[in-house]
Amino acid sequence: MTSSELQEQLNILAVTLLQEDADKIQKLIEVQMENLATRYCPLYEEVLDTQMYGFSREVDFAVRAGLLHELAGREIVSKLERELAVLYEALNEKAKQ
Amino acid sequence: MTSSELQEQLNILAVTLLQEDADKIQKLIEVQMENLATRYCPLYEEVLDTQMYGFSREVDFAVRAGLLHELAGREIVSKLERELAVLYEALNEKAKQ
Repeated sequence: MTSSELQEQLNILAVTLLQEDADKIQKLIEVQMENLATRYCPLYEEVLDTQMYGFSREVDFAVRAGLLHELAGREIVSKLERELAVLYEALNEKAKQ
Repeated sequence: MTSSELQEQLNILAVTLLQEDADKIQKLIEVQMENLATRYCPLYEEVLDTQMYGFSREVDFAVRAGLLHELAGREIVSKLERELAVLYEALNEKAKQ
């Protein structure tokens, strides 16, 4: 394997790992969205915020380690943040009712 | 550069980045230890716990990405945890006084 093949392989691995972690957070968001009307758990927000923080630290590390472009890192975090914002808006709407 | 040279370089970079982050937390712990008697800020514990969580996620990612041996990762986290435990014990002693 050449060094550029290795670098490509490592970059793909990094993105795969980050996507797995993003999917876990995505799943947490979905579960909370589904349970909006029935069994809302206030700890969910705390857990999601903590998970998001940990995830953003992972992405930041991957960028600094040269495994991921800064823009790609920002995109993967922003996507989750947008979904989280939708959830929080729905929670706020629910609280108003 | 051969692929094994690249891998070695990436591993060294990963350890350097993680050590930088560990040093920042270490510095936070030292500052709090120094200020134990004078101006204790309760938010420090919260900040340190959050930083430790983020750091452990970075280390975990580096291990999964094959940049760091699992044992080395555990060692770098444990070292900080031990220092944090010393700080918390000192804070507890202080609270008893």
